[in-house]
Amino acid sequence: MTKKSRFLQTPVEPFAVEAGLTAEQILSRMERISFQGRNLAVAHRVWLKMLESAGGLRMVVAHLIAKRYVDCLVSTGANLYHDLHETRGQHHFLGSPHADDAALAEDHIDRVYDTYADEEEFIDNDNWIATFAASLDSRPYTSREFLYRLGGHLWEATGRDGILTAAYRAAVPIFCPAIADSSIGMGLSQARQKRAGAGQIDIIGDIVESANLIIRRPRTASVVLGGGTPKNFINQASVQAEFYSPEVGGHKYALQIVTDVPHFGGASGSSLEEAQSWGKLATDAARASVQADATIALPILASALEMSARTILARRQMPLFSMEERTMTIDGHTVPSDRFEDLNEPAV
Amino acid sequence: MTKKSRFLQTPVEPFAVEAGLTAEQILSRMERISFQGRNLAVAHRVWLKMLESAGGLRMVVAHLIAKRYVDCLVSTGANLYHDLHETRGQHHFLGSPHADDAALAEDHIDRVYDTYADEEEFIDNDNWIATFAASLDSRPYTSREFLYRLGGHLWEATGRDGILTAAYRAAVPIFCPAIADSSIGMGLSQARQKRAGAGQIDIIGDIVESANLIIRRPRTASVVLGGGTPKNFINQASVQAEFYSPEVGGHKYALQIVTDVPHFGGASGSSLEEAQSWGKLATDAARASVQADATIALPILASALEMSARTILARRQMPLFSMEERTMTIDGHTVPSDRFEDLNEPAV
Amino acid sequence: MTKKSRFLQTPVEPFAVEAGLTAEQILSRMERISFQGRNLAVAHRVWLKMLESAGGLRMVVAHLIAKRYVDCLVSTGANLYHDLHETRGQHHFLGSPHADDAALAEDHIDRVYDTYADEEEFIDNDNWIATFAASLDSRPYTSREFLYRLGGHLWEATGRDGILTAAYRAAVPIFCPAIADSSIGMGLSQARQKRAGAGQIDIIGDIVESANLIIRRPRTASVVLGGGTPKNFINQASVQAEFYSPEVGGHKYALQIVTDVPHFGGASGSSLEEAQSWGKLATDAARASVQADATIALPILASALEMSARTILARRQMPLFSMEERTMTIDGHTVPSDRFEDLNEPAV
Amino acid sequence: MTKKSRFLQTPVEPFAVEAGLTAEQILSRMERISFQGRNLAVAHRVWLKMLESAGGLRMVVAHLIAKRYVDCLVSTGANLYHDLHETRGQHHFLGSPHADDAALAEDHIDRVYDTYADEEEFIDNDNWIATFAASLDSRPYTSREFLYRLGGHLWEATGRDGILTAAYRAAVPIFCPAIADSSIGMGLSQARQKRAGAGQIDIIGDIVESANLIIRRPRTASVVLGGGTPKNFINQASVQAEFYSPEVGGHKYALQIVTDVPHFGGASGSSLEEAQSWGKLATDAARASVQADATIALPILASALEMSARTILARRQMPLFSMEERTMTIDGHTVPSDRFEDLNEPAV
Repeated sequence: MTKKSRFLQTPVEPFAVEAGLTAEQILSRMERISFQGRNLAVAHRVWLKMLESAGGLRMVVAHLIAKRYVDCLVSTGANLYHDLHETRGQHHFLGSPHADDAALAEDHIDRVYDTYADEEEFIDNDNWIATFAASLDSRPYTSREFLYRLGGHLWEATGRDGILTAAYRAAVPIFCPAIADSSIGMGLSQARQKRAGAGQIDIIGDIVESANLIIRRPRTASVVLGGGTPKNFINQASVQAEFYSPEVGGHKYALQIVTDVPHFGGASGSSLEEAQSWGKLATDAARASVQADATIALPILASALEMSARTILARRQMPLFSMEERTMTIDGHTVPSDRFEDLNEPAV
Repeated sequence: MTKKSRFLQTPVEPFAVEAGLTAEQILSRMERISFQGRNLAVAHRVWLKMLESAGGLRMVVAHLIAKRYVDCLVSTGANLYHDLHETRGQHHFLGSPHADDAALAEDHIDRVYDTYADEEEFIDNDNWIATFAASLDSRPYTSREFLYRLGGHLWEATGRDGILTAAYRAAVPIFCPAIADSSIGMGLSQARQKRAGAGQIDIIGDIVESANLIIRRPRTASVVLGGGTPKNFINQASVQAEFYSPEVGGHKYALQIVTDVPHFGGASGSSLEEAQSWGKLATDAARASVQADATIALPILASALEMSARTILARRQMPLFSMEERTMTIDGHTVPSDRFEDLNEPAV
Repeated sequence: MTKKSRFLQTPVEPFAVEAGLTAEQILSRMERISFQGRNLAVAHRVWLKMLESAGGLRMVVAHLIAKRYVDCLVSTGANLYHDLHETRGQHHFLGSPHADDAALAEDHIDRVYDTYADEEEFIDNDNWIATFAASLDSRPYTSREFLYRLGGHLWEATGRDGILTAAYRAAVPIFCPAIADSSIGMGLSQARQKRAGAGQIDIIGDIVESANLIIRRPRTASVVLGGGTPKNFINQASVQAEFYSPEVGGHKYALQIVTDVPHFGGASGSSLEEAQSWGKLATDAARASVQADATIALPILASALEMSARTILARRQMPLFSMEERTMTIDGHTVPSDRFEDLNEPAV
Repeated sequence: MTKKSRFLQTPVEPFAVEAGLTAEQILSRMERISFQGRNLAVAHRVWLKMLESAGGLRMVVAHLIAKRYVDCLVSTGANLYHDLHETRGQHHFLGSPHADDAALAEDHIDRVYDTYADEEEFIDNDNWIATFAASLDSRPYTSREFLYRLGGHLWEATGRDGILTAAYRAAVPIFCPAIADSSIGMGLSQARQKRAGAGQIDIIGDIVESANLIIRRPRTASVVLGGGTPKNFINQASVQAEFYSPEVGGHKYALQIVTDVPHFGGASGSSLEEAQSWGKLATDAARASVQADATIALPILASALEMSARTILARRQMPLFSMEERTMTIDGHTVPSDRFEDLNEPAV
């Protein structure tokens, strides 16, 4: 027992309870406990490192956009739709997971686990989106371009904060590869009833654009909240970019807060290590994977970052986007959606 | 104790082990045990009922298409891509979830939990898809139309069975709303490098077409394997269809085999009851929800159906699709993707 | 692509659906698919290997005892209590997980997820156990000795098959380390109201006895269904035995069917690999871990074994227990509960 | 839309990020979000209510004992063993869940998911426990009595804080119904090698004592961290107590932080509603169930309580235990382990 094993380096230290601890202090005391508590603390540290690096593609929700904790967002359509619902001055309501769903259906109330919403307000949203989409030119828009314009329209109409409006004002691009699988997609489809040729979304253009973004700013970090299509889209962008640029070698930082598990083989619950085999992540990427509901982990993490990342954020050289035109620019350079920027091609 | 409670109707009966039991016999003996075993048996019964009804929209994987256990498929891009990989004569390989992913990355091996594949073969697939996509007309294709043509091309090239080829031969439509989030999407994006204007997918058209399908054949059933975008897309089609047709009132049958759970609020793990509040399911829909990996549940369920559904299948009036043209038909009627068939509109 | 990586050895093969497949055929076709389906097939193969070896400590439920698929059982008290309930001619009933529990409480119906039982029958069981326990001598009994006598009393009273009665008739020992946390424990506690000094259980003696069993028959296999205290008790017996016998080196075979996951740090969901670090399993142990509800996996596995293990079972040299006396014997040798058999001690 | 449904009462309010938020402020801002985040906030509120009530049986870990957030603890043996390990001045170490377990086994390092410990130190602990147990009288001890004496011995030997020592000093009883399934049980079994008749634990006496405790102080609350045997033992105590006292009617408050799920039928993941059908909880019990790893939820909850519960704790009338003798007393009244205090019996 005199000679410790090489495996025994850093002792676990118990969490010391104290009144008035801030989020940052709580996470700092969780760094040397075990299991998911420790992982949440590591996630905090990895995020700080992300912000300190030269950075590129990253994503998380609303406030983090405005303060530029993230430079880019990939989202499900549902998240953006429920955001639009609230920004338009409507509400979600506290409900019960044990509700009588037939009674809810009769009252035209839609349930999302323990949360209710008014179906008529949803129908009104769909129509509002359809009307806006029908007012656009009859040409394909990437989801990124469409969502930027939708955010702008929403800001003009409401002047209220939210994910879409914050992204519009901070000029942070949002990609939504599965937009067809959401009520925003339903609104877009209804635009065709209002005007022939309306509601065209070029999601393949989103693939090109997101990869070009990484080709331009190759040292990227990925923040995943909850899995699903956004998780794979972020990772695939990195793999796709590498085809055309030798400088891209997987995300350099990765952080995921998931509830899904790896052992059923789905991408949603897959480990960050598995992502390394694909080249989605660099094999030496700093990383943290937390098994927790984002509704618990994110409030704590964001509260802590608001304190701990203050000076890092202030001196950070963030990428600057312009999205006024059909083709986006980053730091003054165009990011085309119709062709990859091929750095492997010999210069003419 | 002489008077039993109204709650105590049907006694649980233990499963009796016997040599040589078939899948159907096993499921039949599981009908009166508890927990997920019982749910799997109920799922079998619900599926049989689905087939006996006049039916409409239903979905599950390969063999079930050819035998028309299902009339329509909604899939992730990943499932179809890995199908194409095998149909092209390549393999996935038994692997370990505890692999050294850095070593795999060095060997260009991609890992999916306990399964390996050759990255170079994947790059070849992507290029094969890109070449095919670049050979198509420079116009938007719904994912349904594109996948039908891809299936046809694959059948001509290989003559091998698979999901895409079976669907092509049986004229069963496949929708892939999140096609941009997959290697099929990556192949489509690479088509733009081969020919300007290639790789256009009209996923909003898919929303219109899938709803029109339900408007035409309103008594539908949904079979969900694993959650994700297909689950919501199937359910949303039913909600969308109801806007335009008073006859549609949610799926009449629903069956899901999921590993995700409801309590984190995601659509992927949401309960069939929650779906009723939205009108995705009829409030009196026959339903079964099984918490199990589909790789366990589906082989047993399909093996059992192959026996139990024989006569039902033989006398079934299945919908007939034609997909040779840009606009699909069902039983001779067109299913447009540019406009909902509005049965609420007064006849001219 | 001409030279495959060392990682790509065995191609995945799709499951072929066919009418009339037996459980054994289904599992055999699942051996080369992916994820938990493959794991279930591997579990079948590992179990067959267990039976072919010289064998020792193993455990699973009722039928497997009578046919001696297992030589020993470790159980929760709840499993044995619900077994006793049915053997006494009472029932569990099909119920709903969405029941109104206040209404059930009013009717004195106890719910276990989707299964109901009559509380008055439970109270009667408790009293029946208490009366039997009060009839025993005023001395401590290991849970193993008590459960053998309880099984005998139950067989005399009912002549019906069940776990307790099958174990009694086949002379298979049952350990229940957490017997105090169950209604059997409640029955034992009520025996003290009937007679002072009744209801004494020597669970520490169970530790000694289970380790001595392994010291006697050291090449052991463990079959875990569902985690909890039985899982660790089986593994701890192997570790404890090794203190006193150089021949014991962890279980040689291990199979677990669990729904719990490793990442929260509990023993219940811990991996078989983690068990190797403790010496609970030999580092070269054949093993299979399946993430599935036992109510799905076990009927299939047992149905398959009934066919596949037939000849192996017939020629198997199983250990023979005698439990008529306070001290158990195995193959004629005593297995004390008051002292470990120390093979490290020099012979006198 | 003018008339809202009765279901839409309380709007969801977004979490507002701010630098320097304390745990209490974070939880207060989580009260009106959705999913598990909301549940964690409700758990905080329920715990405060528990402390304000006249209260009785409650349980949670170390610090909460000393400050008397809880009046009684039910624990697994493993938790107490790892506590003893640290109190004896030894450590657990940060490790990796992806470790090479064969290499760890060679170095005699035991792994618990992402945490390592030195096996030789564990062997030394076992021996230390065995020596202490062999020094006690040759008679059965309830786990409660044994653990009180063990805590006292540990305090004398080390003078260090921990669960066992805090409980000893605060005179808070600890029950460990599955003590045989742990390394404390292994230490007790080894005591028999040191002295015949040592290591006797009367776990059935623990059932009697815990029920008598509730009979004495019937308005109880239960706090469950992680499920397993402690969860059911706490609940069963309430059911058992009701047999002998008309005043007991299930716990009045209940709070569980679990990662297990209900749909596989195990007690560990069962819902608080299911517990109501059994009478374990009052049908009007205030309750909160949080799906989260306790290593995340508890540091936050305890940090918040340390602030929010300050005044409530100060004016609280907590039950006073004395455990110097074989028979425990509460507020001066004896709590026997050999017989239930039957309040249904007519007074003599």
